[in-house]
Amino acid sequence: MIYFTCDYAEGAHPKILQRMAETNLEQTPGYGLDVHCERARALIRAACGKPEAEVHFLVGGTQTNLTVIASVLRPHQGVVAAATGHIGVHETGAIEAGGHKVLTLPTADGKITAAQIDACFRSHFEDPTHEHMVQPGMVYLSFPTETGLLYSKSELTAIHEVCRRYGAPLYLDGARLGYGLASPENDLTLQDIARLCDVFYIGGTKVGALFGEAVVITDPALGSDFRYLIKQRGGMLAKGRLLGIQFETLFENGLYDEISRHAVNCAMRIRRALEQRGIPMHPVSPTNQQFPVLTQAQFDALSQQFVLDIWGAEDGSRSCRICTSWATREEAVDALVGAIASLPD
Amino acid sequence: MIYFTCDYAEGAHPKILQRMAETNLEQTPGYGLDVHCERARALIRAACGKPEAEVHFLVGGTQTNLTVIASVLRPHQGVVAAATGHIGVHETGAIEAGGHKVLTLPTADGKITAAQIDACFRSHFEDPTHEHMVQPGMVYLSFPTETGLLYSKSELTAIHEVCRRYGAPLYLDGARLGYGLASPENDLTLQDIARLCDVFYIGGTKVGALFGEAVVITDPALGSDFRYLIKQRGGMLAKGRLLGIQFETLFENGLYDEISRHAVNCAMRIRRALEQRGIPMHPVSPTNQQFPVLTQAQFDALSQQFVLDIWGAEDGSRSCRICTSWATREEAVDALVGAIASLPD
Amino acid sequence: MIYFTCDYAEGAHPKILQRMAETNLEQTPGYGLDVHCERARALIRAACGKPEAEVHFLVGGTQTNLTVIASVLRPHQGVVAAATGHIGVHETGAIEAGGHKVLTLPTADGKITAAQIDACFRSHFEDPTHEHMVQPGMVYLSFPTETGLLYSKSELTAIHEVCRRYGAPLYLDGARLGYGLASPENDLTLQDIARLCDVFYIGGTKVGALFGEAVVITDPALGSDFRYLIKQRGGMLAKGRLLGIQFETLFENGLYDEISRHAVNCAMRIRRALEQRGIPMHPVSPTNQQFPVLTQAQFDALSQQFVLDIWGAEDGSRSCRICTSWATREEAVDALVGAIASLPD
Amino acid sequence: MIYFTCDYAEGAHPKILQRMAETNLEQTPGYGLDVHCERARALIRAACGKPEAEVHFLVGGTQTNLTVIASVLRPHQGVVAAATGHIGVHETGAIEAGGHKVLTLPTADGKITAAQIDACFRSHFEDPTHEHMVQPGMVYLSFPTETGLLYSKSELTAIHEVCRRYGAPLYLDGARLGYGLASPENDLTLQDIARLCDVFYIGGTKVGALFGEAVVITDPALGSDFRYLIKQRGGMLAKGRLLGIQFETLFENGLYDEISRHAVNCAMRIRRALEQRGIPMHPVSPTNQQFPVLTQAQFDALSQQFVLDIWGAEDGSRSCRICTSWATREEAVDALVGAIASLPD
Repeated sequence: MIYFTCDYAEGAHPKILQRMAETNLEQTPGYGLDVHCERARALIRAACGKPEAEVHFLVGGTQTNLTVIASVLRPHQGVVAAATGHIGVHETGAIEAGGHKVLTLPTADGKITAAQIDACFRSHFEDPTHEHMVQPGMVYLSFPTETGLLYSKSELTAIHEVCRRYGAPLYLDGARLGYGLASPENDLTLQDIARLCDVFYIGGTKVGALFGEAVVITDPALGSDFRYLIKQRGGMLAKGRLLGIQFETLFENGLYDEISRHAVNCAMRIRRALEQRGIPMHPVSPTNQQFPVLTQAQFDALSQQFVLDIWGAEDGSRSCRICTSWATREEAVDALVGAIASLPD
Repeated sequence: MIYFTCDYAEGAHPKILQRMAETNLEQTPGYGLDVHCERARALIRAACGKPEAEVHFLVGGTQTNLTVIASVLRPHQGVVAAATGHIGVHETGAIEAGGHKVLTLPTADGKITAAQIDACFRSHFEDPTHEHMVQPGMVYLSFPTETGLLYSKSELTAIHEVCRRYGAPLYLDGARLGYGLASPENDLTLQDIARLCDVFYIGGTKVGALFGEAVVITDPALGSDFRYLIKQRGGMLAKGRLLGIQFETLFENGLYDEISRHAVNCAMRIRRALEQRGIPMHPVSPTNQQFPVLTQAQFDALSQQFVLDIWGAEDGSRSCRICTSWATREEAVDALVGAIASLPD
Repeated sequence: MIYFTCDYAEGAHPKILQRMAETNLEQTPGYGLDVHCERARALIRAACGKPEAEVHFLVGGTQTNLTVIASVLRPHQGVVAAATGHIGVHETGAIEAGGHKVLTLPTADGKITAAQIDACFRSHFEDPTHEHMVQPGMVYLSFPTETGLLYSKSELTAIHEVCRRYGAPLYLDGARLGYGLASPENDLTLQDIARLCDVFYIGGTKVGALFGEAVVITDPALGSDFRYLIKQRGGMLAKGRLLGIQFETLFENGLYDEISRHAVNCAMRIRRALEQRGIPMHPVSPTNQQFPVLTQAQFDALSQQFVLDIWGAEDGSRSCRICTSWATREEAVDALVGAIASLPD
Repeated sequence: MIYFTCDYAEGAHPKILQRMAETNLEQTPGYGLDVHCERARALIRAACGKPEAEVHFLVGGTQTNLTVIASVLRPHQGVVAAATGHIGVHETGAIEAGGHKVLTLPTADGKITAAQIDACFRSHFEDPTHEHMVQPGMVYLSFPTETGLLYSKSELTAIHEVCRRYGAPLYLDGARLGYGLASPENDLTLQDIARLCDVFYIGGTKVGALFGEAVVITDPALGSDFRYLIKQRGGMLAKGRLLGIQFETLFENGLYDEISRHAVNCAMRIRRALEQRGIPMHPVSPTNQQFPVLTQAQFDALSQQFVLDIWGAEDGSRSCRICTSWATREEAVDALVGAIASLPD
């Protein structure tokens, strides 16, 4: 069986394991204060075009989200997010456990708009009883979204401007950032994101690392004392160098981009196969996640050989997710493409 | 320079790296539901003599402490600990951030007694205004303590009985558990600890793993829904198999015990050298941490070749910590022992 | 100008002020341990037909909600409520500040159904990734709802049974409980509510008291240590007797029922006037709150003499709330009824 | 029996009850936005000599402390207080429930010094591992202390200066502020306190009101959005005018000062009686609380006629607290003074 269920089914890119083995008996200080972390920080700052940005390494995405949000908000504030946003759905209430409400905006496809965000802030502050309601205090986007979609440069710029207007930090969850940047439909660079967001993170867990997310704080006002927060929320890895080594490896010689492109190319091949076979997709994603809506017979046929992730079952149809990653083998894609072509009606 | 500053200066035992490399392209489900985690759980249950115990893997010690304590306590309860306990001193208020007070008991050497704990509970419940005070709700011990000391079987049994009397779970922080079990002065087995504690963790980060702590919950009432808590507090590793693989490796063929013994043997050699040179130690530790009190001249002499951790400076003297670990080389110990022997007065 | 904006515009029923004056120089112990609180507890237990229930007095509704919910839930659990529920909308995130998500169910009129609640629990526990989501842990209803509506005995019984099935406590927010019980369309008694709910509160602030809510805990498992929680969340009034005196007064000689009936009778007179004048209402409420949808001209006409609460303005129309209370004067109602009769189209 | 156990045994000063009765049927907006609150705020600002200060009314002391501290601190910060401070001892962990550690300083008599506070901040920031520890973020004093003592103007000025140096707000808990200001040994005015503290509160509950504390925020940076916090923590009284009316009454015509002086005068008469009879006191308090250390025989003799508060029993002696208040009758003091004079040895 070949798994296309998620983008964290394998370990790490071999270069990362190799570098870990090579450095294994080096003695370094703990907690991210070692030379590998320093070098990884420098590489990331350079890639972002932000020589002054703060860069911190955490272990996982939920941990990163809860730490960033706890650091930014005051107690009476909430974080604005799409109703499908990871922080509001799949983090077991981590944000609420930190004391904050996720203020959700409705979305058909996983994206939210500058107009929606503007209306959310405006209606709050215009309401004479606003003190009885949670104050929107920051905005959370995921890029790509949980549904595999992208914000364009003009969309992200518009959201940035709304955030600026209300003095609300803009935070971008980049768990799959590489797969977004590598998409043929993407018009944003890493530098654009660093310029338009106040905080964001570059996902490692799903893009070639064993684990690890690199938080980039471009607004100096938000960086103050962030390491205390990391430690307090349990995110400060004793052997912090493991994070440094991984991001060093990913950000030298363009490895992060290269493996991201590979995953997206695989996904685009699968998407074309689905299109040619006339399988509907919802939504139609330009990144490493594909969302075909299969009949039960089609699902059963693919399940002879592949494991897919099921999102829902309605009216006899099966909404699936097919994920590719840095680790997806071309032969596996060949096999899946072939199987799609011969699907029954 | 040779570092004796801490027990997390290097990476992992080579067998762990090797096993990670071998399994790297296996496809497994995430979040600790894979076969490696299952097997590691079985090995740990067997080692503990607790076939029914729940075993969960988390990434680090602070994360483990904050998750366990949040899971056990009700909002008005606090956790009783030595004033020197890690949770009260060096976790940036992680327990308070979870809503709970650390109720500290004074200690001269890092240990607390059954009598102290009994008095703490009794005085609380006897006070007619107890509702105005935080209720002691569980007890936290570290084994070895932050000061390198051990509880004996009779001490731990007495504490267990006090906890039972007040219906308060007993939680043991085993960040350095291996180094305690391997001490020549220890009379507790892992099975004893599993029998006497309601929850404890077996430290991996400081004992041969890249990272990772194995929580063992022996009281079934405390295990309910613990995975929700791990996820909520950011401790659920996407590639959970990394934790499974590490503990599998540590708990087959006695590797955990073997590397722990090595570290303690190294420490005992250093302790003997300090004793022979007449260097005072405070406290005198039977585990992998040694606490010499050096003169400034002695400290300067050792610092030519070695990096030690400084705990305090009073009256011209330097309180130091020397740590050994699974990774300490015999030649490094030879060198340190030699240097100690020729220290000035 | 006459205010019909809310049910807390005046002070307290004169008998309460009189009793406070009479007892003013009595010396009593603090924190709710005095004879007035004891007597009020006994009166409430008797009225509820629950001689074993725990009764606690808090100052206000938000405080009561946040304290009850913090006491009942474990950290990974949330409270299920209508999307219009007070806890999710108008308490500035008090529940989230206590660490818990409000799991909202959609509602057209402010009520939720047993079927919705059942589906919420079932879909959670059936989802294989449920550990990544907040677990529904209790159910919150308001009676009357924020929209003035009532649950019937059969509806509340069905909800009770769903809660029982999932082991989830049922909590009823009775900020306006008296006005619900006194409605001509109500078929629930206070005893029914005490039998069907695990915790509820009898609102004083909006029903004749200066302030104060009486929490009734009928499930003994939930009562444990509740006074610690009250103190911790800042709800333990030093001069607790003030709460005892007020509830004593309200619950002897049927005063609570009597003043509630008065308010509802006034509201029903206003409702009939609105019906006769052909003014649409949304929803049509059988309790002390009425929700006419006025044209701008009608709103302006009434605003010559009366102050109403505005809920929304759409399509040129004005959604209003008219509140009566224990303090509403018959002459004020006469005037309003007259004004309604002569409203323009 | 006459109670000298506490300063909240009776209701309120009769003028307050009278004013409440007079205004009972006024219709006012809720939540502290009424004319009585406005007027009370203006009176308090004038009394403090701070025309720009923010003034907010809350119901009780614990509620006030937890709300102010939650508003001021970031998540990784704690509040520095004497080990005997109310927030660390008698608020059931309310501060920790809000996520913050109380960083206690040792004290022999309930007071802390500028030097202690300075050392606390300095040692934190000088420690290279400070990110692993809770950062001191504000300072909490009580005036008078829980032990009845006062800070002098020079002491408070020195503490103010230390706080300024570290950018840490100074917060003064004035639960018994009136009794401190009225002491013959006090050299601070309300204006001094308003000038030297960033936030403080003027206690009403223990000084003539039914309930209520007036928070004065003199640092504009700390005032932002404070009403959201009050609402979120359950402290926003629906009939906020009740707080306004009480503080209006207390702060016009000097009533607050007058009744405070009365209480202190009564206490000083009792202190002189104790001194003349040779009863030791610990500490010797210049305010409304007196702390005699009685023999068991003396305690039994007084207990024939009076109820005292017991603080501790050691070596056969009884540490007691005798409280006077605005409500203490001269005849009760006469009786107590007489009884003290004729105490056995």
